[in-house]
Amino acid sequence: MMTNDNKENSEDAPSKKALKKAQKAAEKNAKKAEYKAQNAAQADVAQEETGDCSVGLYGNLPMNRSQEKLPVIHKEIKDLNKNLTNETVTLRARLHTSRGKGKQAFFVLRSREHTVQCVIAVGEKVSKQMIKFVCNITKESIIDVEGKVAAAGQKIESCSIQDVEIYATKVFVVSASAQRLPLQIEDAMRPETDDPEGLQIKVNQDTRLDNRILDLRTPTNQAIFRLEGGVCHLFREALRSRGFTEIMSPKLISAASEGGANVFGMKYFEKEAFLAQSPQLYKQMAIAADFGKVFTIGAIFRAENSNTHRHLTEFVGLDLEMAFTHHYHEAMNVIGNMFTEIFRGLRDNYADEIATVNNQFPAKPFKFLDPPLCLEYKEGVAMLREAGIEMEDTEDLSTPNEKLLGRLVKAKYDTDFYILDKFPLAVRPFYTMPDPTDPKWSNSYDMFMRGEEILSGAQRIHDATFLVERAKAHGIPLDTIQSYIDSFKYGCPPHAGGGIGLERVTMLYLGLDNIRKASMFPRDPKRITP
Amino acid sequence: MMTNDNKENSEDAPSKKALKKAQKAAEKNAKKAEYKAQNAAQADVAQEETGDCSVGLYGNLPMNRSQEKLPVIHKEIKDLNKNLTNETVTLRARLHTSRGKGKQAFFVLRSREHTVQCVIAVGEKVSKQMIKFVCNITKESIIDVEGKVAAAGQKIESCSIQDVEIYATKVFVVSASAQRLPLQIEDAMRPETDDPEGLQIKVNQDTRLDNRILDLRTPTNQAIFRLEGGVCHLFREALRSRGFTEIMSPKLISAASEGGANVFGMKYFEKEAFLAQSPQLYKQMAIAADFGKVFTIGAIFRAENSNTHRHLTEFVGLDLEMAFTHHYHEAMNVIGNMFTEIFRGLRDNYADEIATVNNQFPAKPFKFLDPPLCLEYKEGVAMLREAGIEMEDTEDLSTPNEKLLGRLVKAKYDTDFYILDKFPLAVRPFYTMPDPTDPKWSNSYDMFMRGEEILSGAQRIHDATFLVERAKAHGIPLDTIQSYIDSFKYGCPPHAGGGIGLERVTMLYLGLDNIRKASMFPRDPKRITP
Repeated sequence: MMTNDNKENSEDAPSKKALKKAQKAAEKNAKKAEYKAQNAAQADVAQEETGDCSVGLYGNLPMNRSQEKLPVIHKEIKDLNKNLTNETVTLRARLHTSRGKGKQAFFVLRSREHTVQCVIAVGEKVSKQMIKFVCNITKESIIDVEGKVAAAGQKIESCSIQDVEIYATKVFVVSASAQRLPLQIEDAMRPETDDPEGLQIKVNQDTRLDNRILDLRTPTNQAIFRLEGGVCHLFREALRSRGFTEIMSPKLISAASEGGANVFGMKYFEKEAFLAQSPQLYKQMAIAADFGKVFTIGAIFRAENSNTHRHLTEFVGLDLEMAFTHHYHEAMNVIGNMFTEIFRGLRDNYADEIATVNNQFPAKPFKFLDPPLCLEYKEGVAMLREAGIEMEDTEDLSTPNEKLLGRLVKAKYDTDFYILDKFPLAVRPFYTMPDPTDPKWSNSYDMFMRGEEILSGAQRIHDATFLVERAKAHGIPLDTIQSYIDSFKYGCPPHAGGGIGLERVTMLYLGLDNIRKASMFPRDPKRITP
Repeated sequence: MMTNDNKENSEDAPSKKALKKAQKAAEKNAKKAEYKAQNAAQADVAQEETGDCSVGLYGNLPMNRSQEKLPVIHKEIKDLNKNLTNETVTLRARLHTSRGKGKQAFFVLRSREHTVQCVIAVGEKVSKQMIKFVCNITKESIIDVEGKVAAAGQKIESCSIQDVEIYATKVFVVSASAQRLPLQIEDAMRPETDDPEGLQIKVNQDTRLDNRILDLRTPTNQAIFRLEGGVCHLFREALRSRGFTEIMSPKLISAASEGGANVFGMKYFEKEAFLAQSPQLYKQMAIAADFGKVFTIGAIFRAENSNTHRHLTEFVGLDLEMAFTHHYHEAMNVIGNMFTEIFRGLRDNYADEIATVNNQFPAKPFKFLDPPLCLEYKEGVAMLREAGIEMEDTEDLSTPNEKLLGRLVKAKYDTDFYILDKFPLAVRPFYTMPDPTDPKWSNSYDMFMRGEEILSGAQRIHDATFLVERAKAHGIPLDTIQSYIDSFKYGCPPHAGGGIGLERVTMLYLGLDNIRKASMFPRDPKRITP
């Protein structure tokens, strides 16, 4: 099968092909030379001044194109401490701030939430030119600094590393920042304070989001998104340990899943398609397909023109669904206990991140009970009535009432998390299982953090005939949900589940005031960039 | 603030409000009674026949609405064994097959990939009517069976539980299946065999996908998707242990990320939006924002009208990106070693799943080296030329050549996984870093499984000026990528990464022939349902 057609070693006279090859090679060599020249021009050779004793110790490095596998091992700022005194280290970090002061300069290096002070002073190997060069490096540039670790004369309050500083001996710019920053990191990281004497320079939210890659560099944002990754991890671990299988559900669907409102439509080749408003139908199909217990993490889309502190047009759903044997509380309890594990995991494993965020945005520690508190809807309504709210038994919770109830529950039970069970049937989607004894109620629940809903869930109707009946009662055109209904025609175990908004969990756990703070690149009706 | 407006206990004469309440209560009670009657009608009372000694031991259960928290603990089929002989167990499972035989019936219960044989025979507590009822239960119905565990007379070859069977004493239908199944599970799970004497009833792919919730019930599909969840888990664990942070990237974007071709567009309120073709730009922004090492798992959309065995319009991307110190091989090696960990984890923790899949779709075990094999592109081209392929040095790999190279590598190095480094610059996206010494090449790599590409990655250009230059050379309108370019203006570390297609990894690891087998609900130009 494999034949060798390679003519390279043949003894024929130069063929047309060979000539063509030679010509190509010549062109290539010319291009190569030109390219090398360009490369050299880009490197900075400014340090070749006469009389500069620091030649070769500072300057702009050529753009890293993986020219060399250098043996230099860089140290992390967070690992600096007194035990390293007198050792020479190399750090790569951002230039956070700098100021020249006569024949010396002080500058602070920042790497994520860690900062260290560096000093450079004119001396045998440090020229005035080198000091000038250092003072002219733009803030936010990434630089390599070689220097000696020295015990600090006094505690350096302005840095996270407070007991040592670095006497710099080499300073190279790896990647220079533009001179003008659209926002100052120091402003963006300033604690929110009510102190009228405090510095009041704030960075407004649109400026932050327009320049998100700068804004995200603050210690608070570094911490928020590390913790958010932790929520996903803890969610998965809690469920994997209970025998759940991770599945993936499609975002492109042929019909609006939760009724036609608030759905993004699009052209799909010759057809029409929509963006899934939840993985609801797919995780239920997975149950009908015998996966037993499933979870999925993925994008959720809502074409809702809501410009509030807690709505996004795209967010991340943490969804789960499970078959149960007798009663939907089997599932509800799994979810409740899962939340307890998440809260415990965050408290125990993300204490530094929580402290960092609280330093800028103060909030009370998140309280939870184990096992979690579970109230029935009517108990919640009774508490609200006792607090002076007039409402019907089966009236939906308005946002203010939801928040008030959260405060009442906190006051009475000392928990920021609770479950509200047995919602009125009328306020739930068509696929919610009605209560077996009273059609006013349903086998459904919401879960709340600091008085805001973060999970909505229920026992789902697993019987195709009854599902049709309920869809009709809701006025849903059956042809739009036919494949969903068909999923229950071939035997399906009773099942329940829920969907969680990741950004809401992060926001409310940390006590943040806006969901955009918990979305790395938030999407709302007015924003789809960056 | 909280006042008590509750008038329930006041001694006033019945007010208008109270009258209204009473009326409502009456209406409610009427509704409740009607509802209960409906409920009862739905329950099956057929067992009340005269002379039936099995009354109460069989029948159709009313639809589970979480009526009761019963104490019955169900056993899993997989946990049945000889140690349980003579014990009474309750199982909930699907009726896989059944056949009556005079005064007895044999039926097989199936739960995921596990099956067990049950026997029921006329006796003191088992009536003819009960046998008839059992024989009439439709296949795929979910039933509760109580019975005694008994040692099997001889090995039951047709079931996964071979040493015991169940003497059924109670049989209740939990959820009945429709009589006519659009596909038979036994056909869908039949091994692919070349044996001309073998049963040749195959279920074609469209029938499978049209009725995916039935198709997914086969042992093979149960195993495929459990293993696919495992790939995600192993990917994350390999990266988390190396200090990576999980991030979430938006799918709704304002401009086509990888050029205008193959992108789904849509209306976004008053604007236009697109579906992200990769999280590329966002993971790079996370690097520019100091997250250091990031990964993300999420939906990827390609409006490509390709109807091949390995293309989907929506798939799941496993993406990662990391800052490196000196050379992009730091990142490439992390990715290569991560794959080794994934392959080892699958081999060690998913042996049962792999065996189950191989039973239906035979494939050779997946081979890999530790550390993985890495070849340069030109070495790959040399191997192809040696095998008789004529191609230019910098010509892209055609699909047939890619596969041939996979076979050549397998023959020479005995590995199904390898890395091909230093691709021709011309065949890579504009943001790929060119090789530092020769503009013909680039700092980019692909990784292959069984001769098909599953990862594409590179060192990215982290310098805004150079990025503009390269974008212009590719003819990309700068205004469409301005916010991307701006991300590199404020200092960015050199970085590299890659993107992996989850379904391709699953398909190729298991040696499946079509990517639709590795997508729970696949999307292609012709399919967006179910």
